[in-house]
Amino acid sequence: MDLKSMVRSVPDFPQKGVIFRDITPLLQDPEGLQNSIDALYERLKDEEFDYIIGPESRGFIFGVPLAYKMKKGFIPVRKAGKLPYKTKQKEYDLEYGTSIIEMHVDAIQPGQKVVIVDDLLATGGTSKVMVDLIEAMGGQVVKLVYLIELEFLNGREQLEKYKIESVIQY
Amino acid sequence: MDLKSMVRSVPDFPQKGVIFRDITPLLQDPEGLQNSIDALYERLKDEEFDYIIGPESRGFIFGVPLAYKMKKGFIPVRKAGKLPYKTKQKEYDLEYGTSIIEMHVDAIQPGQKVVIVDDLLATGGTSKVMVDLIEAMGGQVVKLVYLIELEFLNGREQLEKYKIESVIQY
Repeated sequence: MDLKSMVRSVPDFPQKGVIFRDITPLLQDPEGLQNSIDALYERLKDEEFDYIIGPESRGFIFGVPLAYKMKKGFIPVRKAGKLPYKTKQKEYDLEYGTSIIEMHVDAIQPGQKVVIVDDLLATGGTSKVMVDLIEAMGGQVVKLVYLIELEFLNGREQLEKYKIESVIQY
Repeated sequence: MDLKSMVRSVPDFPQKGVIFRDITPLLQDPEGLQNSIDALYERLKDEEFDYIIGPESRGFIFGVPLAYKMKKGFIPVRKAGKLPYKTKQKEYDLEYGTSIIEMHVDAIQPGQKVVIVDDLLATGGTSKVMVDLIEAMGGQVVKLVYLIELEFLNGREQLEKYKIESVIQY
């Protein structure tokens, strides 16, 4: 199945000159959804780890079904102010200004192994700050997997110490 | 398995006097995650429908694994400005001000049947506006299922025409 053909390219979103890769047609197609999750599963099935971690909100889309399929726990990474319990934060730079991501302080115990799942590897900024936050809590990032990778943005550069795989490349 | 015991009650979040029911300990526990999704599945398995619809972002947590398990497509409902393609919107009232939810215009064809999955039924406001949006697009809501229902908020009142089930009640 050609998953790439089910991704819709939307020009000039979220801003002029950017082509947005829209996964909603793929999610809406039962086979597209099955095959996307199975393709990510293939890239994780030989790894040993404790948890799957996914960032709000599109990281939830693939992270939770993989956790279900692999009988693992799922840990959400959220934007500041969304998690109700005590959190550990990490600030990072955006094109304009900064943003903050959080995890619950009791989400990871030192020495635990995790994988990160997200829909998209672009510049790698969000993934890098997640890795930093996980490592600051004593966790170990075993692998990062993405449905889509925008290779021309070189997101792997700031994640070169880590195992990374993607299913669809542009 | 007592799923309710795995939900953490956080007092005074997001504001004084509110007890927030935090599902992150349940998501993090492999059996908690399995059993939550299986319990929701039990409440959907006898229904005939085309798509599972879930609202950003916690509706993605349970909606997508159920779509995967049931070999259905998943349609996200998002806050304004997040979906890249042409959308249909619905505005609704919050405690202070208003909010807007969106679906892609081509997400539902007239006559298609859908179920709504979300983590929480509180006042029913988000669910009601989702139902209105789906029906405005010609879709038919077969059932709504929630992991948690806050019964004292009477969310079912504005959804009394619909089949509703929840797994955990407060």
